[in-house]
Amino acid sequence: MTGTERAASPARQESLRELNLELVFRHVLAAERPISRTELASVTGLTRPTITRIVEELIAGRLVTETGSARDGRAGRPRVGLILSRSGPAGLGLDIRADGLAACVVDLTGTVRHLAFAPFAFADAEPAAVMGRLAAMASAAVEAVAAERLTVVAVTLAVPGPVDKGVVRSAPALGWADVDAGSLLRSGLGHLDLPITVDNEANLAAHGELHATRGELDNFVYVSGGLHIGAGIILDGRLVRGSRGWSGELGHVTVDPEGRRCPCGSRGCLQTYASPQALLGDSPAPAGTMPELAVTTRADEGDAATLAAIDEAGTALGVALSNVLNILDIGTVLLGGGFALLSSWVTDRVEDEIARRVLSAAWAPVAVRPAILGPDAAAIGAALSFIDRLRLDPAAWLASQR
Amino acid sequence: MTGTERAASPARQESLRELNLELVFRHVLAAERPISRTELASVTGLTRPTITRIVEELIAGRLVTETGSARDGRAGRPRVGLILSRSGPAGLGLDIRADGLAACVVDLTGTVRHLAFAPFAFADAEPAAVMGRLAAMASAAVEAVAAERLTVVAVTLAVPGPVDKGVVRSAPALGWADVDAGSLLRSGLGHLDLPITVDNEANLAAHGELHATRGELDNFVYVSGGLHIGAGIILDGRLVRGSRGWSGELGHVTVDPEGRRCPCGSRGCLQTYASPQALLGDSPAPAGTMPELAVTTRADEGDAATLAAIDEAGTALGVALSNVLNILDIGTVLLGGGFALLSSWVTDRVEDEIARRVLSAAWAPVAVRPAILGPDAAAIGAALSFIDRLRLDPAAWLASQR
Repeated sequence: MTGTERAASPARQESLRELNLELVFRHVLAAERPISRTELASVTGLTRPTITRIVEELIAGRLVTETGSARDGRAGRPRVGLILSRSGPAGLGLDIRADGLAACVVDLTGTVRHLAFAPFAFADAEPAAVMGRLAAMASAAVEAVAAERLTVVAVTLAVPGPVDKGVVRSAPALGWADVDAGSLLRSGLGHLDLPITVDNEANLAAHGELHATRGELDNFVYVSGGLHIGAGIILDGRLVRGSRGWSGELGHVTVDPEGRRCPCGSRGCLQTYASPQALLGDSPAPAGTMPELAVTTRADEGDAATLAAIDEAGTALGVALSNVLNILDIGTVLLGGGFALLSSWVTDRVEDEIARRVLSAAWAPVAVRPAILGPDAAAIGAALSFIDRLRLDPAAWLASQR
Repeated sequence: MTGTERAASPARQESLRELNLELVFRHVLAAERPISRTELASVTGLTRPTITRIVEELIAGRLVTETGSARDGRAGRPRVGLILSRSGPAGLGLDIRADGLAACVVDLTGTVRHLAFAPFAFADAEPAAVMGRLAAMASAAVEAVAAERLTVVAVTLAVPGPVDKGVVRSAPALGWADVDAGSLLRSGLGHLDLPITVDNEANLAAHGELHATRGELDNFVYVSGGLHIGAGIILDGRLVRGSRGWSGELGHVTVDPEGRRCPCGSRGCLQTYASPQALLGDSPAPAGTMPELAVTTRADEGDAATLAAIDEAGTALGVALSNVLNILDIGTVLLGGGFALLSSWVTDRVEDEIARRVLSAAWAPVAVRPAILGPDAAAIGAALSFIDRLRLDPAAWLASQR
């Protein structure tokens, strides 16, 4: 928080109300068991009438709900407990993966309430066909959770490439360039009038991982593989998007300036050494399976060409990540997406390169390990991205519903 | 500003006082001419007695001073104008450069009030000798500005390498490893009991540039050359330090994984292609001159080996910067330190590599240009770093003086 932000306007009555609502909501959020109005008054220092008014607002907005009694360790009659609503607003995440399409709904507590997957063969599929299939999965998800009294209020779509206001600039693995995925999804959703956000899948997966680590890991580089080698960079608990939103293009970090030609027009990009295509050579994986799974199957069988390609990919990934770490000084690398499947094969190589190439590694060790969430990270992170905005600013959400 | 920060405690009387003091101070800071108490009351919405109390506090703390009359465009008697104090607290910056040592004092308005330079031959100089000389320059600076009723209240030292709590971890150009520069400076300063901060020179120079651009440039990569190739990364107006403070080690970004050996133990680091040593070969620059100046002199004379080395350095710098930009998506590169002197020689090469290698460059152009402040950037940035903290949080500063 800088002084500029703090002192932009005098502290007024209205912002005090919002601050106090946030404060109360945050205590409900953080409580490990139902919390009573009396306890809220005590921990916040606010008066009982203020607490009563704020709790009414939170209940009316379906953010908080009353449950059985709260034990506050004192004698006297039991008090009504308050908890986060599990039947209020929910976020929907959609993801385009190497092996198919995924949809996920997350409730206000951050719990996954719906997770669906459909294999999909991308070869020759038009963007409209892909988005139509995703829209159908989205409608099904909205209906499924409605039966549990959850209301999906926002959709976030994860795509394997850089995004600009809903438009996918470049996703070579899908054969997409300048595809307006946001509009296609909007058409597919028909009468379902929900706000739609399109974002890079590595960014969203990193967001999902941040949530999954529950505050224990505030700084990490999440590496995503599969359709697109990208990185989601988390510094001090926040996603680093760069100044225009196209950070994390790890797949196009130069590993060898005179190396292999990359479809992007450059030479020696990480993508040319560590993509599924590079690892699988001329015999691609069967449609509807994770390409990295095919890689590990061949490696397990002792296929020499595959083992050599994995070695090369691990070294190249280590060189590229060393560049990231020299520039950003981050202590943890999480291998996610397809790289999670390959992690037992490539981690040693990656660690060797980091130890050799990152200046501060001599005194500030870097941990390299598989990500937690697995292949659903981006779908979960996409669903969470709206929920987390709501949790950070409940007052704005309530205002938007009036 | 996240909800966590905002809602950590209820809005209390004390923080309201601080917020209002910041608000008033910020208006004095932003005013382009003396501002009256009446105007302050009008623009802040605070009551006249509150303004009177706050202004008294700011004057007593030597942050604000009364000047001639403020014209507020209305009839009636002229009002007393308020301006930032030019005779209050000041920041002292010290810098270890390739060609010598620098000291700089900046007042509360951000104006440089003292700038001294002393040539220094680093060959075989012990850290204690370097720091002793700097301490003498610091004492002289404190005395010089005291004559103008400025009080130096903090010292910041810029060093060419990564720093850990006052200790320079590694500065190969000086032959330093694990040198406790902070303690050495403290001893050298003797009775002058000032808080001392030691920081990386690329970070401080970037901070200086941020100030020099006066808010017109919020996102840039500052490249520092000379003793140490480093980068200061500014995103959304803030320095990106990484999770442990060792970001920006641009000199050790890998340009060619099987390239030249680097003293750091790796191979193919940018440092091995673009340092003054790489550019000057076996005939170093005369002591006390910027090595890059010797490089441009030889290039101007048409020396073939120098021209080839510059070409190679420019390409290598372009490859390394492309990696930074793919990872961070920043639209401006400022060539500073020694690279400012070389910029007319290397900019084309750098731009070519960026156009070829940065994925988003196709739709989001990157500007490459020389930095504004020249070789004094780090000393000025060091002096400003304390002043800027004070300007952002005047209430904390006043509290610390009680």
